[in-house]
Amino acid sequence: ALFPSLVDELLAALPADLPAPTKDWMRGLFEYTVPGGKMNRGLTVGAALASLLGRPLAAEEQLKAHVLGWCIEWLQAFFLVADDIMDESLTRRGQPCWHRRPEVGVIGVNDSFVLETSVYTLLRKFFRADPIYTDLVDLFHSVTLSTACGQLMDLTTQPKGAIELERFTMQRYKLIVKYKTAFYSFYLPLACALYLGSLFSGNPELTAPAALEFTSAISVQMGEFFQIQDDVLDVYGDPVVIGKVGTDIQEGKCTWLVVKTLEAASAEQRAVLQQNLGKSDLDSVARVKKVYADLRLQEKFQQYEEESGQAISQAIRGTEVLPQAIFADLFAKIYKRKL
Amino acid sequence: ALFPSLVDELLAALPADLPAPTKDWMRGLFEYTVPGGKMNRGLTVGAALASLLGRPLAAEEQLKAHVLGWCIEWLQAFFLVADDIMDESLTRRGQPCWHRRPEVGVIGVNDSFVLETSVYTLLRKFFRADPIYTDLVDLFHSVTLSTACGQLMDLTTQPKGAIELERFTMQRYKLIVKYKTAFYSFYLPLACALYLGSLFSGNPELTAPAALEFTSAISVQMGEFFQIQDDVLDVYGDPVVIGKVGTDIQEGKCTWLVVKTLEAASAEQRAVLQQNLGKSDLDSVARVKKVYADLRLQEKFQQYEEESGQAISQAIRGTEVLPQAIFADLFAKIYKRKL
Ligand SMILES: [Mg+2]
Ligand SMILES: [Mg+2]
Ligand SMILES: [Mg+2]
Ligand SMILES: [Mg+2]
Ligand SMILES: [Mg+2]
Ligand SMILES: [Mg+2]
Repeated sequence: ALFPSLVDELLAALPADLPAPTKDWMRGLFEYTVPGGKMNRGLTVGAALASLLGRPLAAEEQLKAHVLGWCIEWLQAFFLVADDIMDESLTRRGQPCWHRRPEVGVIGVNDSFVLETSVYTLLRKFFRADPIYTDLVDLFHSVTLSTACGQLMDLTTQPKGAIELERFTMQRYKLIVKYKTAFYSFYLPLACALYLGSLFSGNPELTAPAALEFTSAISVQMGEFFQIQDDVLDVYGDPVVIGKVGTDIQEGKCTWLVVKTLEAASAEQRAVLQQNLGKSDLDSVARVKKVYADLRLQEKFQQYEEESGQAISQAIRGTEVLPQAIFADLFAKIYKRKL
Repeated sequence: ALFPSLVDELLAALPADLPAPTKDWMRGLFEYTVPGGKMNRGLTVGAALASLLGRPLAAEEQLKAHVLGWCIEWLQAFFLVADDIMDESLTRRGQPCWHRRPEVGVIGVNDSFVLETSVYTLLRKFFRADPIYTDLVDLFHSVTLSTACGQLMDLTTQPKGAIELERFTMQRYKLIVKYKTAFYSFYLPLACALYLGSLFSGNPELTAPAALEFTSAISVQMGEFFQIQDDVLDVYGDPVVIGKVGTDIQEGKCTWLVVKTLEAASAEQRAVLQQNLGKSDLDSVARVKKVYADLRLQEKFQQYEEESGQAISQAIRGTEVLPQAIFADLFAKIYKRKL
C-alpha cells in the first residue's frame, strides 16, 4: 500500500537532528487524520488519467497518479483539522477530532501546517525533475487560497452564537460552496489528471487555458451539486449507509435546505427556523424538519437533482476541448448517490 | 512605498466574484498584521544582495529584493498570528493580537492561511518567469516546514499549565531556537539574497550546495545568538528602548536564563523557579529575578556574548565560498544590540 510508504518518506525527509518524539508525533498525526475518508478525491486522479490516456496505466503513471491522489488527501486533512478547530467540532469520520485528543488541543493549529507543508514535500520528492512540477505547485497553492477564501466567507456569514437568517441567500450559499468545496474536491483532482496526462502523452492541449477553464467551470457545477446532495443526505440520508447521524440542523449550518426554506417560507415558518436552528434538543430538530416537510423540500431536491443533472450532462456533451469521459465518469459516480 | 502596492496586487489577484467585505477583511488583516515589526528580516535581503553584487542595486534588483523582503514579513505574520492563537497571547507589537479583535477570534486560524498563501501569490506575480522561481518556492516551503517543526518541539516541551523544569535543557533549547527562529529569521533572507545574486550576476556558485550549507550553518549560529540576546533583553533590556515590558518570566517560557539557572542552581534555587515561574504577580517575578541575580546571569551572558561573538566572527572569516561581508554586516547589526 502506498500510504505507509509516503509517511515513511515524509519522516525520512525531516532533518536528522529532530528528536524521535517529534517524528513520532507527526506519524501519529498523519495516521490519524489523513486516511479514513471516502477517498473520492484521491481516487479521481487515476481514473481520470486512465480515461485521458485511453488505456490502463503503466506502473509509473499509476504511482504518480496515486501520489497526487494522496497529496489531495493530505491537503484535505490540513483543511479538516483546522476547520474542526474553528468550528469546535467533536467528531470526524467516526472518531474524536484530532484537536480533541488530550495531548493535542490548540497544537492542532500547528499540526495543520505540518499537514499542509507535507503536500509540498511529497510533490518535491516525486515531481521535482518533471516539467509539470512548477504547475503542480502553483495548482495546489491556488486551490489552497480558494479554499481559504471560501472558509473566510463561511466563517464571516455566520457570526458566533447568533443565527442571522437574512445572510443565508442562495447566491451567498453557492459562492461559499464554490470556493470552500468545489475547487479542492473537483477541480484539483481533475487538473492533476490533466497535468499528468500532458506529461505522459506529450499533448500540451490537455492543460491549455481553454481546457483548464472548462474543467474549472464544470467542477464548480459538480461541486455545487455535490454539496447540495451532502446537505440533503445529512437530513434525509440513511445513517446506516452514511455511517453517521447528521447534525447540520443542530449546528445551525447554512445549508441548501435552509436557503430553500427561506425562499418560500411564511413568516411563521421563518420564525420556527429562527428559534430552532442551532439547537440540539430533539424537539427543536423536529420542528425544523417539520418546516422542511411542509415545504416539500425532498421533492424540491429531486427536481433539482434531475434538472441540475441534465444541465451538467449537457455542459459535458457540449465540450470538445477534452475527452468528455473524464467528466462524465466522475459525475456518474455522484449522481443520485446515497452515500 | 511598496507595501500598499503589494496589498493592492494581492487583492487584485483574487477572483472577481469574491464579495467586497471578504476582500476588505483581507486588506484589514494585511495592514494589521504584516507591517509594524522591526523589519530586520525583510531589510536583510537588499543589504546582502548589494554586498554580494558589490555595487548599489539597480531599480529592478532593488524591487525584487524588497518584494522578497516583504514575502518574509508576510510569512512571519502567518507564524505570529498562529503563534499568538496557540499561546493565547494578548498583545503583539504594542497592539492587541489579531485574534483578540472581537470580530476575529478563531477565524484567525484561517487568516493565518491567507497570510501564508499570499507569500506564494507574490512569488508567482514577481518571479514566475525567472529561472530561480522554483528554487524560491522550495525555499519558502522548506523554511515553513522547519519553523513548524520548531513550534511543535516548543509546544510539546511545555505542557499546558504545568512547568516541568527537567524538560528545559540547553540541548533542547538550542534545537527549538534553531528550528523555530533561526531558519526563517537568518537563513531565509540570506538565501533569498543568494538566489537573487545568482539571478543578477549569473554566478551559479552563489547557490551551490556548499554556499547554501555554509549559509545555513552560520544562520543557525546567529539565530541562536540572537534569541539568547532576546531572552536576556526581555528581563534586562530597557523597556523604553525595546518598546515593551518583558513577560517571559510571567509566561513561564523556556528561556536561556532558565536553562542557565538550572545548570547551576542549588536545590533551593531550583525550587524557587519551580514555584514562581509562570506566575504574574510582582513578588513571584521578583523572586525569579533574585535567583538570576544570585547566579550572576548578566555576567554569564556578557561572557557568552563575547565568546559566541568571537566564534561566529571566526566562522565567517573561515569561509571562502561566499563574500564574508554579507554575514559580517548582518552580524554587526545584532552584536551587542540593545533592541
Ligand atoms: Mg466544520
Ligand atoms: Mg467550518
Ligand atoms: Mg455535510
Ligand atoms: Mg508566542
Ligand atoms: Mg509559541
Ligand atoms: Mg522574546
